[in-house]
Amino acid sequence: MRKIVLASTSTLFGQDYLTYLEPAIRELFAGIPEIVFIPYARPGGISHDDYTARAAAAFAAWGIQVRGLHTFPDPEVAIRHAAGYFTGGGNTFLLVKQLHENKLMDLLAAEVEGGKPYLGTSAGSNIGGVNMQTTNDMPIVYPPSFQTMDLVPFNLNPHYLDPQPDSGHMGETRETRIREFHTQQNIPVVGLREGSWIEVKGTEITLRGNGSARIFKAGHEPYEMPSGGNLSLI
Amino acid sequence: MRKIVLASTSTLFGQDYLTYLEPAIRELFAGIPEIVFIPYARPGGISHDDYTARAAAAFAAWGIQVRGLHTFPDPEVAIRHAAGYFTGGGNTFLLVKQLHENKLMDLLAAEVEGGKPYLGTSAGSNIGGVNMQTTNDMPIVYPPSFQTMDLVPFNLNPHYLDPQPDSGHMGETRETRIREFHTQQNIPVVGLREGSWIEVKGTEITLRGNGSARIFKAGHEPYEMPSGGNLSLI
Repeated sequence: MRKIVLASTSTLFGQDYLTYLEPAIRELFAGIPEIVFIPYARPGGISHDDYTARAAAAFAAWGIQVRGLHTFPDPEVAIRHAAGYFTGGGNTFLLVKQLHENKLMDLLAAEVEGGKPYLGTSAGSNIGGVNMQTTNDMPIVYPPSFQTMDLVPFNLNPHYLDPQPDSGHMGETRETRIREFHTQQNIPVVGLREGSWIEVKGTEITLRGNGSARIFKAGHEPYEMPSGGNLSLI
Repeated sequence: MRKIVLASTSTLFGQDYLTYLEPAIRELFAGIPEIVFIPYARPGGISHDDYTARAAAAFAAWGIQVRGLHTFPDPEVAIRHAAGYFTGGGNTFLLVKQLHENKLMDLLAAEVEGGKPYLGTSAGSNIGGVNMQTTNDMPIVYPPSFQTMDLVPFNLNPHYLDPQPDSGHMGETRETRIREFHTQQNIPVVGLREGSWIEVKGTEITLRGNGSARIFKAGHEPYEMPSGGNLSLI
């Protein structure tokens, strides 16, 4: 049975790394002593070692060992042998480029579809969608493809922000950007606000966490989905 | 002599389209009765016709005719024969994809390097940089390359926004994103706030408009460049 958590963010304002996700993470990885961490997104340019250490420190409190994918001699073998996965946030272009170049994107998707638990935050959640084309990140590298794992039948927009009508700033709002996406593609988009995550158990896809999510579909007005809502029906 | 204006935005809050740029535009296109408008970036999914009409209405008041590039049977011939160019904002990925697919990127750059005046706003300014990899836009389409016209020896970040330290939002700030770019590439980046533009006259590259710009260089702390500052020296 598929077991997946795709979270908008790793960290809530004023809290420690992953703390708000502790119950979801404990349930997701119950009985699993060690997982593989995928540090490729490198938030702020942090090294793979330092990023893995940050994840390992958080998971240690829950009795789960974390090993960085970059420390294995063969990342394909590491993905095949792992019991579970966590992909941290950062830059989605960096993450997707390395997953494709190392031929890991489809392999990781197959392992997760086969039932190995997967946790993603931010960029690590973006790759759970059909493609990465609703990321907020800068295209700092050129990936060979924008295709991602397609674990859910929609795209994600993590860190979703509502338009601020009284802002004098003339840059596009997040809603405007997602509407522009829908001039090109018909894939639904879940605007996932901080504090929200998507839980997949088998074929059930449920919105969890505090607050609602904003659902965008091509040709329709966006609408709100409350926490607990069924995302497999959008 | 090269004559180029690369503006952060087309429109200041509460003003009409292009109004704040009128003196710069009149000087740039002095003596030129008709220019070609490149509508490919399609802000908000607007049609090429409607977008061109918006530009034409603004330029009509200044006695300059505007014709959309999409209305010519052969866009390469249109670029070769045009007396000047304006590329409007919207989605940089859409714009760059179509310029490359229509084999216009290098051609347009060559015509502008040869002295034909060029105006860009937002996405239309991004393509004046070395590459489009510091755009704020969503990757709604997959361009064959991120390379742009390289009219100036740096990249632009239009609609530049300063970090808001008291925001509870955990998404990356613009500064964080540009620092991540510099973990991958050494090209300097000009964070161009709304109301600012870059003026190129021959080899002189000058910051114009209200307020300063934020200059980012790999391995250095970012700093402010005042209006009137020499951008050829960064």
